[in-house]
Amino acid sequence: MSIVPQWVRDLKPSGPQGNFLFTKEARKRKHDILAALKSEKVFDKSQNYFSGRVDRFETALARAKKLRHLYLKHGWDEMDRQTANDLTSEPTPYGLHESMFLITLRDQTNDEQKEKYTKPANDYKFIGCYAQTELGHGSNVRGLETTATWNQEDQSFTIHTPYLTAGKWWIGSLGRTANHAIVMAQLIIKGKGYGPHPFIVQIRDLETHEPLPNIHIGDIGPKYGYNTMDNGYLFFNHVKVPHIAMLARFVSIDKETGKYKRPAAAALVYGTMTWVRSHIVLQAGGVLARGVTIATRYATVRRQFQDRDAPQHEKGENQVLNYTMVQIRLLPLLAACFALHFTGKAMMELYEANQNKLKAFVDGGDTGRSAGPEELQASSDMLADLHATSCGLKSIASYTAVEGLEVCRRACGGHGYSSFSGIGTYYADYLPTTHMGKVSNYILTQQVARYLLKSARSKQDSGCAYDVLGNDADIISAFAWRASYLTFEALKHRDVDKRSWNSLLVDFYRLSRSHSQYLMVKNFYNTLQSSQAKNELDPETVGVLHKLFRLFALHTLEQEAKEFYVSSAVTVRQIQLARTTTVMKLLEEIRPHAVRLVDSWDFSDWQMDSSLGRYDGRVCEDMFYRASELNPLNRVTVDPYPDSPVIFKKNESASLKSRL
Amino acid sequence: MSIVPQWVRDLKPSGPQGNFLFTKEARKRKHDILAALKSEKVFDKSQNYFSGRVDRFETALARAKKLRHLYLKHGWDEMDRQTANDLTSEPTPYGLHESMFLITLRDQTNDEQKEKYTKPANDYKFIGCYAQTELGHGSNVRGLETTATWNQEDQSFTIHTPYLTAGKWWIGSLGRTANHAIVMAQLIIKGKGYGPHPFIVQIRDLETHEPLPNIHIGDIGPKYGYNTMDNGYLFFNHVKVPHIAMLARFVSIDKETGKYKRPAAAALVYGTMTWVRSHIVLQAGGVLARGVTIATRYATVRRQFQDRDAPQHEKGENQVLNYTMVQIRLLPLLAACFALHFTGKAMMELYEANQNKLKAFVDGGDTGRSAGPEELQASSDMLADLHATSCGLKSIASYTAVEGLEVCRRACGGHGYSSFSGIGTYYADYLPTTHMGKVSNYILTQQVARYLLKSARSKQDSGCAYDVLGNDADIISAFAWRASYLTFEALKHRDVDKRSWNSLLVDFYRLSRSHSQYLMVKNFYNTLQSSQAKNELDPETVGVLHKLFRLFALHTLEQEAKEFYVSSAVTVRQIQLARTTTVMKLLEEIRPHAVRLVDSWDFSDWQMDSSLGRYDGRVCEDMFYRASELNPLNRVTVDPYPDSPVIFKKNESASLKSRL
Repeated sequence: MSIVPQWVRDLKPSGPQGNFLFTKEARKRKHDILAALKSEKVFDKSQNYFSGRVDRFETALARAKKLRHLYLKHGWDEMDRQTANDLTSEPTPYGLHESMFLITLRDQTNDEQKEKYTKPANDYKFIGCYAQTELGHGSNVRGLETTATWNQEDQSFTIHTPYLTAGKWWIGSLGRTANHAIVMAQLIIKGKGYGPHPFIVQIRDLETHEPLPNIHIGDIGPKYGYNTMDNGYLFFNHVKVPHIAMLARFVSIDKETGKYKRPAAAALVYGTMTWVRSHIVLQAGGVLARGVTIATRYATVRRQFQDRDAPQHEKGENQVLNYTMVQIRLLPLLAACFALHFTGKAMMELYEANQNKLKAFVDGGDTGRSAGPEELQASSDMLADLHATSCGLKSIASYTAVEGLEVCRRACGGHGYSSFSGIGTYYADYLPTTHMGKVSNYILTQQVARYLLKSARSKQDSGCAYDVLGNDADIISAFAWRASYLTFEALKHRDVDKRSWNSLLVDFYRLSRSHSQYLMVKNFYNTLQSSQAKNELDPETVGVLHKLFRLFALHTLEQEAKEFYVSSAVTVRQIQLARTTTVMKLLEEIRPHAVRLVDSWDFSDWQMDSSLGRYDGRVCEDMFYRASELNPLNRVTVDPYPDSPVIFKKNESASLKSRL
Repeated sequence: MSIVPQWVRDLKPSGPQGNFLFTKEARKRKHDILAALKSEKVFDKSQNYFSGRVDRFETALARAKKLRHLYLKHGWDEMDRQTANDLTSEPTPYGLHESMFLITLRDQTNDEQKEKYTKPANDYKFIGCYAQTELGHGSNVRGLETTATWNQEDQSFTIHTPYLTAGKWWIGSLGRTANHAIVMAQLIIKGKGYGPHPFIVQIRDLETHEPLPNIHIGDIGPKYGYNTMDNGYLFFNHVKVPHIAMLARFVSIDKETGKYKRPAAAALVYGTMTWVRSHIVLQAGGVLARGVTIATRYATVRRQFQDRDAPQHEKGENQVLNYTMVQIRLLPLLAACFALHFTGKAMMELYEANQNKLKAFVDGGDTGRSAGPEELQASSDMLADLHATSCGLKSIASYTAVEGLEVCRRACGGHGYSSFSGIGTYYADYLPTTHMGKVSNYILTQQVARYLLKSARSKQDSGCAYDVLGNDADIISAFAWRASYLTFEALKHRDVDKRSWNSLLVDFYRLSRSHSQYLMVKNFYNTLQSSQAKNELDPETVGVLHKLFRLFALHTLEQEAKEFYVSSAVTVRQIQLARTTTVMKLLEEIRPHAVRLVDSWDFSDWQMDSSLGRYDGRVCEDMFYRASELNPLNRVTVDPYPDSPVIFKKNESASLKSRL
C-alpha cells in the first residue's frame, strides 16, 4: 500500500543510465549460498537502515541462529560459513564465538580441556567470547589488572576485578550472548606475578542465562558502528575456577606443588593475535573493493557538468568517472585492493607454514622428535619477525581500507552521505579492525627496524638514485631503498645521536609504513610473475593488472614523495614525471576497464545493499523507493508550530504504538 | 533503581586521574543560557545515544520549539540563539528555517514580498526550507531540472518536476517540518530559458500540515549523521504560483509584458552561498576544537605503557599526551583550530564590508546615489574574488575539521569508537558541511588562478629559496612562493602546453589548496600582530599562540613538503630541520599549555556530552554509568542457543512493550 501518488511513481530518470555495466559468470557456490539466504525471511534487509539498536541486535541474533541452521542443513564448510557472513554483511552476536573463542580453544587447550570445553563449544552449547581488553587498558596486555590467584589449598584459581579500570570492556559477543569467556588475567602464585594468561570461565547459567553469582555483565552501549554486536563488560568478585580453567597446551601449573611450567616457546602465546592480524591484511582488500565497487559503478551512472566548450542544452552532462579528479581518487584505490589481497594471501601462507613448523617442534609432530634449542630459537625468531611484519602490514592495510572507504563515500558526492549509499554503515562497522589486535605497534617497530637493517646493509654499496623508473624492478628497488634509508637514519638517531626513545616514535612509525609499502609493492609484482597468474589469466587481464601494479606503486611513490626525495631513492624530476605523465596516462588506460575490474570482485546487490552501487544502475529509482516506501518517519505527520505543545498529529505506524 | 550490584558500584579507578585540569572563569552569558537549557526536562541528553531515528526527530522538534520559547522569554538575540543551538549540539528541524530560509528572504525579497513572506516567517507562522539540490543534480546549479514557466495569460508561474532526477532531494527541514520552500527552478519565459531562479512556494496546508494538492513530500531516510534533521524530497506536478512568488530584489518579470529584467550585479545572486561558505570557515575552528578538547583531556587522563627503562610494577603508566606520537597528532590540530578561527573571522569581516558596499551601490544606500558602471564592476570583481577565495577556504576548512575530528577520535584509542566518546556522532553530524554550498569548486579554481597570477608576478624577481626559516616572514613568504609557483605551472600547462582542462583538474585542486593554506598562515600571523591581540592578551599568552602559529605553519609545510621542494620555496635541508628539530621542540614547549589552550575554547561537559572529554577527568566512572544504567539493551535477557526459536526470554523495559 504505497503512500506515493501515481504521478510521482510514473516519473522516469532523465538521460542515459549505466552504460558501462557488463554481464559476468556468477560463481556457483556463492550463488547457491546467496539463494539460500534470500529465501529466508529473517535475512530481509529492507529495515536494516531504519531500525534502532535493540531491534538490530534482536534481528542479528535471529540471523546468527538461522545461519547455524543453514550451516548444518546444507553441510557447509568453514569457507561457506564465512561467505554467508560476508553476504549478510553484519557482525553477528556469534561473531567472537566463531572466531577468537573457537580458535583459542583449538590452539591452546590440552586434551582434557578439548574434551571438556572445545567439544560443547563446537556444538554451540558453550557460547564464548575472548575477554582481554579492560576499561582502563586497551592495547597494553602487560598492563591488565584482572588477577587470577592460585589457591594451593583447594587447587583452584580466584579470578578478581580489583579496580573499576580492571573491568573487562569492549568484549564482543559478551554483552548478552556468551555463557563462557576466555579471560586474560595476571597469574599470581604465592604472591609472585607471572604475567597475563588465558583462563576459560563459565559466566552465565546454562539454563536461565543469568550471570553466575559474583559476576556482573552488561552490554557497553551504542558505538559508531558494529551495533548488531553486543560488545560487553565483565566484572569478577573473587570468583573461583578449577585448575583445568587455565589453558594448558603451552603452560601449566603443577596441581600438587603449585609449580609454574614455562611455555616451550614464548612467542607461541601471541599466535592468535598474529593470525588475526594476517587475516585483517587479507580481508582489507575485499573490504576496500566493496567501497570501490559502489563508488565506481555510481561514477559511471552519475553525470555532472557539461563539456566546457559545448553550448548549454546541446550536450548531456559528463560521466563523473571521466573526470581525472575522480579517477585519481578511485583508480589508485582499485589498484590498492589488489595489492592488499595479494599481500594478505602471501602473509597467510607464510604464517601457516611457520605455525605448522613450530607446532611440529612443540608437539613432536610428524618428525617424531622434539626440536633442539637452536631450531626452536630460529623458528621463534622467525615468528617474531612475522609478528612485527604483520603489525606493520595490519596497520597499513586497515588504514588503507578505512581511509579508502571514506574517499569512496565522498567520491559519491552528497548521496554518499545517505545510509542507502551502503558505504557509511559498512565503514563504521569496519572501523574497529583498526583497533583490534593493536598490541603495541609502536614498540614492535624496533623489531621491524632490526629486520630492515640486515637487508639495508647488503644494498649499501649498490649506488644511489636510479636514473629511470620505467623498469618495474627499479620501482621496487626505490621502495626498498627508501625503507633502508629510513632504517639507517633511525638507528643513527638512536645509537649515534643518543636521541630519546620517545622523540623517535614518529620516525619508527614512518619506517614501519615504508617497509609495509615496500612489501605490498613487491607482493603485487611477485603475484603477477607467478606461474599461477601466467597459467590462469589471459594475457589481456595480466596486462591490465600490470597497469594497476604500476599505478599503485607510482601513485604511492608520489604520495610519499618527500621520503623518496630525502633518501635519494628518486630525483625530483622523476617524481614530477611519474605524476604528470605516467600516472595520468595509466588512469586513462585503466579507465575503460574500471567497471570490469570492480565486477571481478563479484559483490552481489543483496550483499552491498546499496542504492548507488546497484549492478543495473537504477540508482534514483532505488533511492526514491527506499526513502518513500520503506521509511517509517514518513508515516508520521507533525505539528511544526512553536506554540503547539503537541508533537505528533497523527500516528499511522504500527511501530509507533508504544509511544507514550 | 540500579541493576548494578553494590560491589561493582564500590569499585574505584586505579591510579591518578586528571592532574592537568585547571579551573577558569566561565563566561557569564553562556553560563546563563546553559543554566536555562539544563533546567528544561526536554533537553535531558541521557537517551540521545540510544534512541532510534523517529524518537530522535520527535525529541529534536520538541527541543526546537522550546528553544523558540526560551528565545522569546529571555529576550535572546541572534548570537544567544546560536549559542543555545551550539550547546544543545544537534541539528534541529528548524535549522534551515532559521538560516538559509530567513537569510534568503531578508536578502532577496522586495518590499511587497517582505510584508507577505518575511514577516510571518519571522513569527514562525511560515516555516521554511531552501530547496536547491535535486536527486540527480547536486553541486551543479545550472544542471537543475525543476522548471518555473511563466504564464502570461494569468500572470503566474507553473512549477514542475519533469523527471524523477528533478525531484528536490536532501532539503533540510523539508521532510516533515516546513510549510514553505524557496525553490530553485529554471525560469522559462515564452519558451526561452533564463537559468535558475529562486521562488517561494507554499507546500503544506497551514491547518492540517498535509502537502498541498499535486505536491509530494517526504523525508529522505536515515543518514550517516544529522538524523535529528528531516532532510526531505519534494515533487511538483504543474503547481501554479503567483507572480509575487519569484524573489524580486535583484531580478523581476514585468507583469504586463512578461519582460525579464536582468539583475543589477550578477554576482549578488551568489551572495547567500558565499555567506554560508564564509560562515563554515569561521565555524570550522570551533568544530575541530571540540574534538581536540575531548582528545587532549582524555590523553591526560589515559595512561598507557610504562617508561621503557623502569622495572615492572615500580612505575605507573605514562600519560598518553606525553608521547610524541600523540602530540604530533593532536597539537598541530590544536594550532589549526586557531588558524581556522582567525582566518574565518577575517573572511567574515571582508565579506560584510564588501556586501555592505555592494548593497549601497544597488539600493543607493547612505551615499544617496546609484553607483556608476565602473564602480559596480570593480565591486562585483571583488565579490567574485571573495567568492573564489571562500570556495577554496571553505573546502580546506571543512576538510581540516572533518579529518581532524577523525584523528581526534582515533587518538582516543578503542574508547573513541564508543558513542559515549562524543566525537563519532558529532563527526557524522558535521560531515554534511563538506558537501554544503559546493557550487563547482573545481571550476572556480580558475578564478583563484587568475587572482594568484597577479601576486606571483610581483615576486618573480625576488629570488628563489630562502636560506633560513627562522623568521616568521620567511615562512609566510615560502607559502606565498609555493602558491605562485603552482599558479605559473598551471597556466603554462594550459596556455603554452595546451593541455586539456580535464587533465589539469588535479593541478587546480592543489593550487587552490596551496593558496588557502597561505591565507590561513598569513591570517594567523596578522591576528597575532594586530593591536587587538596586543591590547587584550598578556604577553605569555601571545607567546604561546605564537608557538602555535609556528607549529601550524611548519607542520603544514612539512606535510606538503613535496610542493615546497618542487617550487624551490625551501630546501630539503630546511624541511628536515623543520621536522626533526623545530617541530619536535615546539611540541615539547606547547605540551604544558595544551590543557589550558583547549579549556580556552570553553566547551561545557553538557554541551560535549562526552565521557572521555569530561572536565573532571572521571572518564571510567562515566563510561560505566552510561553503559550500565542508561543502556536499554541491558534490560533484555536473550536465549542464545541456535536451537531455540525464541529470541528474548524476558522483557523488562517499558520501551520494549511494542515488540511483537
